[in-house]
Amino acid sequence: MLTGVNVAFIGGDARQIEVIKKCSELDANISLIGFNQLQSEYAGASKASLSEDVLQRLDALILPIVGTSEEGKVESIFSDKPIIFREEHIKNLPDDCVIYTGMAKNYLKELCSRHAKKLVQLLERDDVAIYNSIPTVEGAIMMAIQNTDVTLHGANVVILGLGRVGMSLARSLSAMGAHVRVGARKPADLARIYEMGLVPFHMNQLRYHVDDCDILFNTIPKMVVTSHIIAKMPHHTFILDLASKPGGVDFRFADKRGIKAKLAPGLPGIVAPKTAGVIIANVVTQLMMEQFEENQEGSSI
Amino acid sequence: MLTGVNVAFIGGDARQIEVIKKCSELDANISLIGFNQLQSEYAGASKASLSEDVLQRLDALILPIVGTSEEGKVESIFSDKPIIFREEHIKNLPDDCVIYTGMAKNYLKELCSRHAKKLVQLLERDDVAIYNSIPTVEGAIMMAIQNTDVTLHGANVVILGLGRVGMSLARSLSAMGAHVRVGARKPADLARIYEMGLVPFHMNQLRYHVDDCDILFNTIPKMVVTSHIIAKMPHHTFILDLASKPGGVDFRFADKRGIKAKLAPGLPGIVAPKTAGVIIANVVTQLMMEQFEENQEGSSI
Repeated sequence: MLTGVNVAFIGGDARQIEVIKKCSELDANISLIGFNQLQSEYAGASKASLSEDVLQRLDALILPIVGTSEEGKVESIFSDKPIIFREEHIKNLPDDCVIYTGMAKNYLKELCSRHAKKLVQLLERDDVAIYNSIPTVEGAIMMAIQNTDVTLHGANVVILGLGRVGMSLARSLSAMGAHVRVGARKPADLARIYEMGLVPFHMNQLRYHVDDCDILFNTIPKMVVTSHIIAKMPHHTFILDLASKPGGVDFRFADKRGIKAKLAPGLPGIVAPKTAGVIIANVVTQLMMEQFEENQEGSSI
Repeated sequence: MLTGVNVAFIGGDARQIEVIKKCSELDANISLIGFNQLQSEYAGASKASLSEDVLQRLDALILPIVGTSEEGKVESIFSDKPIIFREEHIKNLPDDCVIYTGMAKNYLKELCSRHAKKLVQLLERDDVAIYNSIPTVEGAIMMAIQNTDVTLHGANVVILGLGRVGMSLARSLSAMGAHVRVGARKPADLARIYEMGLVPFHMNQLRYHVDDCDILFNTIPKMVVTSHIIAKMPHHTFILDLASKPGGVDFRFADKRGIKAKLAPGLPGIVAPKTAGVIIANVVTQLMMEQFEENQEGSSI
C-alpha cells in the first residue's frame, strides 16, 4: 500500500490515467498538476498547481512517459495551459523525493543532478522494456498485416536482433505460422534462436538471407539494413524498423528501389494505451512501495 | 500439368491473377474474357470475348469468387464494360465443361442445373474454408488490435464456435498470450477445446462467460449474441462477428448499449489478396487436373 505517501503527477497522456488509478487504489495522497480538463474523479486525488506547499511534502513526482522538452516543457493532454518544470520547482522538493519519468532529456537529467534528486527513467529498465515488447509486437504484427498482400502464416520473415523486442516478435510470428529466421551476433543468442526452433544466422551473413524475404523486422539501433542488403531483396519485401530513432534501415535507398520501409512509431501508446499505462502503473507503484518502505525504515532507525 | 486443357476466365479481382498465373505455369490454353485493361502477359493466355468459338472448346470456365449477380452480371476490375453471363453462353459450352466459382447465387445455380453443367462452388469446400481461415484470422487479429486499447496478450477472449475459423482463431490467439474460452455445443468440440489447453463451455452457458470479456469473436451464423448476452458484457467489450451475413450478433442492441460491434467483411481478399488468390489457384488447378485425368480416361475407354 501507499497509505500516507504524497505523490504528484505533472501532465501526461491517456497512459498516465492508469498510473493515477493504481496509486488511488493503493491509497496514496495524489496531487494532479496540469489536469484541469480531467473529468473523472479518483479517491485521494485532487487537482493542484505547481505551488511550493504541494511540492514541499512530496515523496514522489511522476512526469509523463516522454519527460520534459529541452526547455522544461511538460506536455499534458488534460490541460490547455503550458506547464514548465523549472529550477524553482525542483528546489522545493524534499531531499528524498524521487522523480519518475519514461525517458529524460538532458534538461531534466541535469536539473536532477544539480539538485541531487533521484531520477528513475522507467523505459530504461529491462522489465519495462520486456513488458512493453508485448504491445510493440502486436503493433508490428498489425502493421505487417496491413502492409503486405500475403499472410504472416507461411511468410518468410527475417528478424534482426534477439533483444527484448526481437525475442517476443520471433515467438509470436513463429506461433502464427511464419517461417522465422533471426539474425544475431552473440553465440548465446544464436543458441537461443536454435532452441526456439527457429533458424539462426550470424549478422555478417545477412546478405545471404534476404533474397526470399517477405517481411524484415529490424530491432537493432545501428545501420544494419544497408543499401547493399536492400539491393538483394525482392521488390515485394516489407521492411519494418522497430529500433529506436533513427533506426537501422537505409530508408532513402529503400524508397529509391521502391521497397516499402517504415519506421514504427511508439507502438505501445498507439495500439494499446491502456495496457501501456498498466505496465507503467505496475512498475512505478512497485518502485514507490519499495522506496517508501526504505524511507520508513530509514526514519525509524 | 494442364497441357492441352482449354480454360476461360470471365472477370474477377486481384485474386484471379494468381489463378491465371498458376494455370499458365501448368501449361493450360487460357482465354481471358473481360480483361481488356489487364497489362501483364502470361504464357498461353490471350484476351478473348464471350464468343461461340471460344466457349465451344472449353474444358473449364472460371468465374470470380463472388460468381454472378442475380441478373447474371459478372464483375471485373480489369474491364470497363459490363459482362453478362447468359443462357446463350452456357448453351455453347461442351457437356463436360466444368464451371468454377467461389459462391453461386440462384441465377447461376439454376442456369447450370437447366443445362446440366457441373458447378463447383469453391468456398463451400472444407479445404478452401480451412485455408481461408488463415487470412481470416490474421484480419480478425488486425481488427481486434485496432479496435481495443489493450493487448490481445492477457486479454479475456471468448470465441463462439469451433468450426473452421473458430479453431484457427483459438489457436492463434492462445499462442499470442490471450486467455481463450471457446463456446460450442458438440461434446467432441468441447473435448477438443480442452485438449488445446483452452477453456471450453457449452453455448447454453454463454451468459456466464461474458461479464469479464474484453473481446468476443463470433463464428456461428445464427443469432447467438442476443441482447440478453450483450446486456451482461462490460462496456469496453469489442465484438467481432466473423459469421457469414447477417451474422449472429444483435448489432442494433450493441449500438444502443454503446458496445462496439463489427461484422467483419470478406477478410481474406482484403488483408491478403495474394494469399487468398493462391489458395483458390491451388485448389482450382488441383480439381482441374483431376477432372482432366478423368476426361482423358473416359475418352480412352
